[in-house]
Amino acid sequence: MAQNGWTPINVFTLEEFLSVAVDAAKKAGEVDLVTETDKACEDLIFNHLKQHFPSHKFIGEETTAACGVTELTDEPTWIVDPLDGTTNFVHGFPFVCVSIGLTLGKVPTVGVVYNPIIDELFTGIEGKGAFLNGKPIKVSSQSELVKSPLATGAGTKRDKLTVDTCTNKINSLLFKVRSLRMSGSCALNLCGIACGRLDLFYELGYGGPWDVAGGALIVKEAGGVLFDPSGADFDITSQRIAASNPLLKDAFIEALQQSK
Amino acid sequence: MAQNGWTPINVFTLEEFLSVAVDAAKKAGEVDLVTETDKACEDLIFNHLKQHFPSHKFIGEETTAACGVTELTDEPTWIVDPLDGTTNFVHGFPFVCVSIGLTLGKVPTVGVVYNPIIDELFTGIEGKGAFLNGKPIKVSSQSELVKSPLATGAGTKRDKLTVDTCTNKINSLLFKVRSLRMSGSCALNLCGIACGRLDLFYELGYGGPWDVAGGALIVKEAGGVLFDPSGADFDITSQRIAASNPLLKDAFIEALQQSK
Repeated sequence: MAQNGWTPINVFTLEEFLSVAVDAAKKAGEVDLVTETDKACEDLIFNHLKQHFPSHKFIGEETTAACGVTELTDEPTWIVDPLDGTTNFVHGFPFVCVSIGLTLGKVPTVGVVYNPIIDELFTGIEGKGAFLNGKPIKVSSQSELVKSPLATGAGTKRDKLTVDTCTNKINSLLFKVRSLRMSGSCALNLCGIACGRLDLFYELGYGGPWDVAGGALIVKEAGGVLFDPSGADFDITSQRIAASNPLLKDAFIEALQQSK
Repeated sequence: MAQNGWTPINVFTLEEFLSVAVDAAKKAGEVDLVTETDKACEDLIFNHLKQHFPSHKFIGEETTAACGVTELTDEPTWIVDPLDGTTNFVHGFPFVCVSIGLTLGKVPTVGVVYNPIIDELFTGIEGKGAFLNGKPIKVSSQSELVKSPLATGAGTKRDKLTVDTCTNKINSLLFKVRSLRMSGSCALNLCGIACGRLDLFYELGYGGPWDVAGGALIVKEAGGVLFDPSGADFDITSQRIAASNPLLKDAFIEALQQSK
């Protein structure tokens, strides 16, 4: 019996799930810049995963955009963002990645985030740790908000309420943290938390579970914590996320609450 | 007679200036993370440059911080930031660089910006073009503000006026551009403009001329334009800079003026 009350199909281990996901991510990383890149990468990843796991469910950014929202069930489900950081990719800005997460009983259990431009592969399996290019990673041990770099994203919505909320939060938080980073990739920001390059990350209104399914597992396995920016439990379907090391969590939530 | 009304010392060409600066930047890129890294890198770079050009002047972030402001004169002057993106470097966030610029008659004439983490070397000589790892680069041909990624920095000052000005500008600009990036390195943002990864960049209140001396020359040689965010001429001693391709300049200045 594995974690999450879910029994893997007898023939596969979590390690095999990860291995197939890594191959799929690396294949997608070889795709050149073409029209329909996102869709081509997603097809390639789904085809690779389906060959190995034909009975599993699949949720992808491109498929969902084309066919409406796909509900997350307790079934083994691969949640894929074929190209996180599309604007960056189009411009050659080196913060782009393929994100693949597997949920069992709705809980992220295997995660792969691959940046093909600088060849960084982040991986994790529930209970087995998180890795960057095969080497173990862990979150920072920073405990002071004022010394902590904060990452966030401005999202893509440009109505007045969204933009005002975004910049009001940034304004409030800038007085309390070390510095602000906006890389344009939600999944890579999560991996930044996981390996200690960043201490604090939050984002409101990102695209969907494909932006966080891979990175969330990697943060947890690196010793980090995920939560809703309000302080409530993290909900993968909510489009709201915050992440840090455990030492910073309470102060970060307080700062986020005061930034409303 | 070279550009700027300044005659290089007979024995040296601008290419030789560049070659020595590249060697100095790469040496500094090999320095490990230690206490006093910035100062160690600066000493190393200055020593390398002084061996070759003992009669030149030198301005460096660390030396200036220790000894007060050094005035820029018409003499050949090497302006060095040994480590732009110090917060990133300490955290292993891969946006850090060594920046070296040579001014003749106060005009940037040779520029080197080297990111040792992802091994990207940006170079330029006045009138001879700009290069990334030896290959010619040029600014983007984007002409629409709404499709343009914008980079900026929040600086390090945290008084209320500075932070409010920063986030008010971001608020106004977010309605007009494609997306917002904050990498934490002024010199790499300039190089991002030069190679078309970014379309728009501005920063108010950065550290000093060492943040821009290398990158400014590289932007110009890549076909880009530099200006004061108010629309006035760029002044390397002013701690205010904006950069874009020529097609976006007028619309960018208008947007910056409206963001006051």
